[in-house]
Amino acid sequence: MEVLEDTELDLDVDQIREYDKKYNLHSWSAQKNLKPLVITKAEGIYFWDSDGKKYFDMSSQLVNVNVGHGNKKIIEAIKRQADKMPFMGPSYAVDVRAKLAARVIEKAPDNMAKVFFTLGGSDSNENAIKIAKMVTGRFKIFSRYRSYHGASFGAANLSGEPRRYTCEPGIPGFVKFFDPYIYREKIRFESEKEASKFYLSKLREQLIYEGTDKVAAIVVESVTGSNGVIIPPEGYLQGIRKLCDEFGIVMVCDEVMAGWGRTGEWFACNNWDVKPDIITFAKGITCGYVPLGGVIVSEKIAKFFDDNVLMCGLTYNAHPLACAAGCATLDVYDEENLIENSKKMGVILGKKLEEIKKKHSSVGDVRYIGLFSSVELVKDRETREALVPYGKDPDGIMSKIVGMLKEEGFSTYSHESCLMIAPPLIINKKEMEEAMNIFDRVMYSIDEFVKTLKK
Amino acid sequence: MEVLEDTELDLDVDQIREYDKKYNLHSWSAQKNLKPLVITKAEGIYFWDSDGKKYFDMSSQLVNVNVGHGNKKIIEAIKRQADKMPFMGPSYAVDVRAKLAARVIEKAPDNMAKVFFTLGGSDSNENAIKIAKMVTGRFKIFSRYRSYHGASFGAANLSGEPRRYTCEPGIPGFVKFFDPYIYREKIRFESEKEASKFYLSKLREQLIYEGTDKVAAIVVESVTGSNGVIIPPEGYLQGIRKLCDEFGIVMVCDEVMAGWGRTGEWFACNNWDVKPDIITFAKGITCGYVPLGGVIVSEKIAKFFDDNVLMCGLTYNAHPLACAAGCATLDVYDEENLIENSKKMGVILGKKLEEIKKKHSSVGDVRYIGLFSSVELVKDRETREALVPYGKDPDGIMSKIVGMLKEEGFSTYSHESCLMIAPPLIINKKEMEEAMNIFDRVMYSIDEFVKTLKK
Repeated sequence: MEVLEDTELDLDVDQIREYDKKYNLHSWSAQKNLKPLVITKAEGIYFWDSDGKKYFDMSSQLVNVNVGHGNKKIIEAIKRQADKMPFMGPSYAVDVRAKLAARVIEKAPDNMAKVFFTLGGSDSNENAIKIAKMVTGRFKIFSRYRSYHGASFGAANLSGEPRRYTCEPGIPGFVKFFDPYIYREKIRFESEKEASKFYLSKLREQLIYEGTDKVAAIVVESVTGSNGVIIPPEGYLQGIRKLCDEFGIVMVCDEVMAGWGRTGEWFACNNWDVKPDIITFAKGITCGYVPLGGVIVSEKIAKFFDDNVLMCGLTYNAHPLACAAGCATLDVYDEENLIENSKKMGVILGKKLEEIKKKHSSVGDVRYIGLFSSVELVKDRETREALVPYGKDPDGIMSKIVGMLKEEGFSTYSHESCLMIAPPLIINKKEMEEAMNIFDRVMYSIDEFVKTLKK
Repeated sequence: MEVLEDTELDLDVDQIREYDKKYNLHSWSAQKNLKPLVITKAEGIYFWDSDGKKYFDMSSQLVNVNVGHGNKKIIEAIKRQADKMPFMGPSYAVDVRAKLAARVIEKAPDNMAKVFFTLGGSDSNENAIKIAKMVTGRFKIFSRYRSYHGASFGAANLSGEPRRYTCEPGIPGFVKFFDPYIYREKIRFESEKEASKFYLSKLREQLIYEGTDKVAAIVVESVTGSNGVIIPPEGYLQGIRKLCDEFGIVMVCDEVMAGWGRTGEWFACNNWDVKPDIITFAKGITCGYVPLGGVIVSEKIAKFFDDNVLMCGLTYNAHPLACAAGCATLDVYDEENLIENSKKMGVILGKKLEEIKKKHSSVGDVRYIGLFSSVELVKDRETREALVPYGKDPDGIMSKIVGMLKEEGFSTYSHESCLMIAPPLIINKKEMEEAMNIFDRVMYSIDEFVKTLKK
């Protein structure tokens, strides 16, 4: 390639576009027709493209920028740690490493004792299942259809959706069970409790068929994220906890997306007072300012590794720059009462979503908890036929819809027929109303667009 | 746990030790008897513990801090980017993301076209094998015994050593072949070329037995790192390239440890003028200042993804803060002529290692290329009996030896019976001599220690 003459020089917008296109591979896409926006600025709940156009960041990027963009406290912490010591190998004790571990355990359910830091969500889930296998000496791992746990081989094999297919043939012992996706269930339930009873009894049956003494872990997203914010019905997570206790299985809650205030609690499992044996996290711990993830383990599991070798490791385990950002991020949650705000603003969001469901013919279902929500689009409200068939969208219908919203300054992303709505936890009432009014307005055009598809 | 009263407060050394012990899980260890040094400062090729004791960082931490600690240029770049925009989602074009991709391709072999950024080495290898499977439509992956490619399921299944065991039962289609570990081979060869001929013909035979049209990739560390700096004999990597061409197999060079100047070339494969189809990297791209890794793909593979969906993705793909650090790191390599210095200082290191091999009865073999080297310890030079048996060291012999070196201010780590020596590429002649004189001196005590083990 051409040599970049002055490497210090800032690129102009055309060069950014050109180099990005020429040299970068973008995730989950064919590359030819990609035309990524050039983003030049981000502040609070907004970001701006190179034309100066402003967007409400209504998905907090990938549901990770919980404190919003450009938070000064986190930025200053990063700068301080960069000056002091950006990196030190994992075998050493370092102030920010010790401090963040303590602060994570402080926020976690009270049965939790230690943390193993990783780089992101996939990583965390990879290590969680390794830990569950080590602790139990068993090899089977249960996880659910319509879950997403990451894209590396272990995490992808946990995942119950098409992003795992390139990591097949699958890893022996990874078993899938059905999730409580009540809206699309083949039968109707009288109540949430009845639904939970059904799903838990089917799971119990499946555990027995697979051999309960072969099962190391049951891994669930406390609230299913990417696959449409599927919220566990009353009694469901408690039931998983009971099954795990009954059979000596490690209960792993993946809180990569749902953790750190997203659902109005520090961890989503708190909504049902459930204490898992392992919690995996990432995203909200640093809000993306520096990559970081982790695995929180119970006291019982922590004790096991007093005498047994923890066969986990990575060069950037408990990265000091990331830990500094993490400490500052937790301070921000505390000082700005963001967990509380998530709950409060979540009520406003929920009301608005119910209105939207009533008004718009293409909305099949809305699901929300805290500032974590999803709008599921349908071709037909009666039959509940999904707007796009499972695992495919050859005509790019959903990206057209996401584009219509973006055009009006409402930025989010979609998965299957669902639109994610999960703004930064710093959002206030006025901003929420402004953003959701845009959404409401665009939904009329989406309704029209969906009608044209039926003809 | 107790609530941390003032979260802004710096911890004192005792608190760091206490919190680290209480709340952190450390890699690859049983936790009970761990007593990690508290590290408070790092600068150039040195770091200091909380007692003010100074250490030569003769492994560049985990062979990643190539430019040394505290590099001002990289730190300033991190601070600038933190102020500007530390994070933006992977779907957007961002200046530093575009620029670093261009600069990586500029440094890569001339058949390379695009890069997919990840967070670290495991990640990079995970994505490389996914890409090879997608491009070929095949599912078998060849890799070698005595390799280390990472600790997540895909990367661990690539690895040919005990760190993969917790990721078993193994992923179907992962096949191991023997590496050219000439020092411990059961037969003796007349020349490197003869050795290469033997290993390549065995590999060819194995490929045929496995079904050449089933094999997606052959994955090799260009120079085996963790497992003892095993350098390919003349003709070996070229032979792998030929086999890949013959059977339409993707050649993946893992340059996570060996890349970015470690061997005296930008990439280790350059030492033999071999152009792989995929190069994976991490470590040296940012020297650990911010976590970053990546997968470089050839023009042919890049073109495949013009029309085919790249089924890879992660929240922190091409993380802006990391990309800014990466751009600055590449500037440092260029401006300080570090690739050249690696080659020059490597000559001095090599001479010193040969002297040490002559002088010390417990040294079986020394292997070195650029500033990448290993000292293999033996119980007996004649029989070549390894100092510790494969995969175990119940009496902690190697950690005692590493401790003896550390005691004298020479910091490194071991794997099996091998000591890693891989200082930052900024090391000068005087520093090298000083450090290696310490090593030489301690080796006398190690010789004595080894003699006591034989009794």
